[in-house]
Amino acid sequence: MSRTGIRTVGNVRRIAQPLWDAPFLKACRGEAVPHAPVWLMRQAGRYMEHYRGLRARLSFLELCKDPDAAAEAALFARDWLGVDAAIVFSDILVVLEALGMPLEFTAGGGPRLPRPLAGVADLDALRDPADAAADLGYVAEAVRRTVAGLPATIPCIGFAGAPFTLAAYAIEGGGSRHFLRAKTFMWREPALWHRLNGILAECIAAHLNQQIAAGATAVQLFDSWAGCLTAEDYAAFAAPHLAAVVQAVAPGVPVIVFGTGTQHLLPQLAATGADVVGIDTTTPFSAGWAACGGPARVAAQGNLDPTLLLGPWTAVREAADRLLAATAPGHIVNLGHGILKETPPEMARDLVRYVHERTAR
Amino acid sequence: MSRTGIRTVGNVRRIAQPLWDAPFLKACRGEAVPHAPVWLMRQAGRYMEHYRGLRARLSFLELCKDPDAAAEAALFARDWLGVDAAIVFSDILVVLEALGMPLEFTAGGGPRLPRPLAGVADLDALRDPADAAADLGYVAEAVRRTVAGLPATIPCIGFAGAPFTLAAYAIEGGGSRHFLRAKTFMWREPALWHRLNGILAECIAAHLNQQIAAGATAVQLFDSWAGCLTAEDYAAFAAPHLAAVVQAVAPGVPVIVFGTGTQHLLPQLAATGADVVGIDTTTPFSAGWAACGGPARVAAQGNLDPTLLLGPWTAVREAADRLLAATAPGHIVNLGHGILKETPPEMARDLVRYVHERTAR
Repeated sequence: MSRTGIRTVGNVRRIAQPLWDAPFLKACRGEAVPHAPVWLMRQAGRYMEHYRGLRARLSFLELCKDPDAAAEAALFARDWLGVDAAIVFSDILVVLEALGMPLEFTAGGGPRLPRPLAGVADLDALRDPADAAADLGYVAEAVRRTVAGLPATIPCIGFAGAPFTLAAYAIEGGGSRHFLRAKTFMWREPALWHRLNGILAECIAAHLNQQIAAGATAVQLFDSWAGCLTAEDYAAFAAPHLAAVVQAVAPGVPVIVFGTGTQHLLPQLAATGADVVGIDTTTPFSAGWAACGGPARVAAQGNLDPTLLLGPWTAVREAADRLLAATAPGHIVNLGHGILKETPPEMARDLVRYVHERTAR
Repeated sequence: MSRTGIRTVGNVRRIAQPLWDAPFLKACRGEAVPHAPVWLMRQAGRYMEHYRGLRARLSFLELCKDPDAAAEAALFARDWLGVDAAIVFSDILVVLEALGMPLEFTAGGGPRLPRPLAGVADLDALRDPADAAADLGYVAEAVRRTVAGLPATIPCIGFAGAPFTLAAYAIEGGGSRHFLRAKTFMWREPALWHRLNGILAECIAAHLNQQIAAGATAVQLFDSWAGCLTAEDYAAFAAPHLAAVVQAVAPGVPVIVFGTGTQHLLPQLAATGADVVGIDTTTPFSAGWAACGGPARVAAQGNLDPTLLLGPWTAVREAADRLLAATAPGHIVNLGHGILKETPPEMARDLVRYVHERTAR
């Protein structure tokens, strides 16, 4: 059974009609839907001219912190694509910044934390997680303005990074190929590691619940780097903290957990009590869903290869047909990771329309 | 049954005693061993001071092309670590260079092919695969000199890149995150793709057989980038060409196939007829071996996390104990991908000794 009780009789209803009947939320609950719901991870992004226009006047972080502009980005993408959900425009690393870690986004090179965590003094210097979450009110405000602009039947997804991925970022100081620092920190300093993850989990949960209070009717936890751990290490060092966050999310609001390279971790992701498990591109969809316990236990999101959207269209169509042949109540169609900046926007929109037409009943 | 017939009665014997009885080769054949054989991918590499000494006077490609220096690198690493096999010092990209593609190794940034393949004219311009393989005599010579320096009981592994990975390199022109060019080429130009892979398969097979003629008594095919493909795409665009290479290797010589991120591809890797399937770090070892058909069908190599070797030692020991609890005849102990340049060499040597002591009988 899932955390929220959404799949149980006598569930906790926090979501008002008509949103309750939105295909996306029905699918989160494993209910039958009029058409397969679809959205695309990173659907408001660089592949869209409209987004590049916003970025011409605002840096990435400025855009995250400007609720009007963030709502504009989220709403334009939702409306233009015709997807079944919006997702708030934000970034997983704002939690680390709020905890007191300087954060930079370089022009082409991705995020950087110039003062990575190295030891106990750095942990001691972190801000109180509740205070940090309170400082992320601009994300809640972006949710509020996004929800205000959405049709009454379209949900807005809130999101945050999972504790493991944020801890790894905080220790690595940025992207990494082998995560040497994060893993050796974890193995050498398990007590500090768990303390750090506890701080993160508290801040993340508060941050998600603020987004929910502002109108988000589902939340996604990105454990983007989970796939670098073996199943044993994930069980020992990551899953308990992810589960703590999932359990702390306001009841009645579906929680999606997702990471890439997580084929070996799917049973653990489902065991956190998440309502929906995101399945990455290379995991065979049905086998991945089965590894989570199958449609009777949990909903599944995924898992088209984002590269397909560069064309040709016939390849997209074939892959979509294969995926939809494996669909069942509780399937949310999505990519297996974020949409690529090289994607022709029309291909993304055509995919959304194709999924809707092909599954309408 | 495996390609070579090594596991069948009446097998083709090409390997003379006492090499035939080497634990590594026994394990390739699924036979009982006096101790679990172990070697480490990229065991002659930057983490070793001796290797850095060679590189102080030779560039990476110069080292590959100097049979004496290449043998020195391979032999020093084998002897110092006490591993059960040497592997020739070479690089998977020399095949592309021999086919006529300029190849550079930049100081810190990895390999680059400044004239990537883009269309039919580029394929037409490739050299004849047999001529190209003949030009790789320096690799065969490095094998010969390595074998000459090895104890009579220690095998030398030859190797090459798999067709998919080399084709992807040739099209991308270097490393890549999402393999956009290679994948879209594959989907848009399937006939050209298969033609390219046919050329590569012919050259790779000839290259491996020359290494075998020079004394290599096992070969490994690195399909390093296989993990970027879905199972459907691997079946359609990659596996047939890998199988063609495996089948073309001289009978009686075990073939190992390996790639990272291949958890979903293991049944296909085993179905090529390979004698040994390499299992990457995050695939649970027993489940991965079972997905290949298990010890009765194929041997398995792997799969310790290379990051572990940065310490602490207790973490290495625990992971080794877990792996060895799942061992069976046909298990070759190794890392789940190449050893990292940050590795303290003593940790690698201690692992080898620990595996030998722990499994001696």
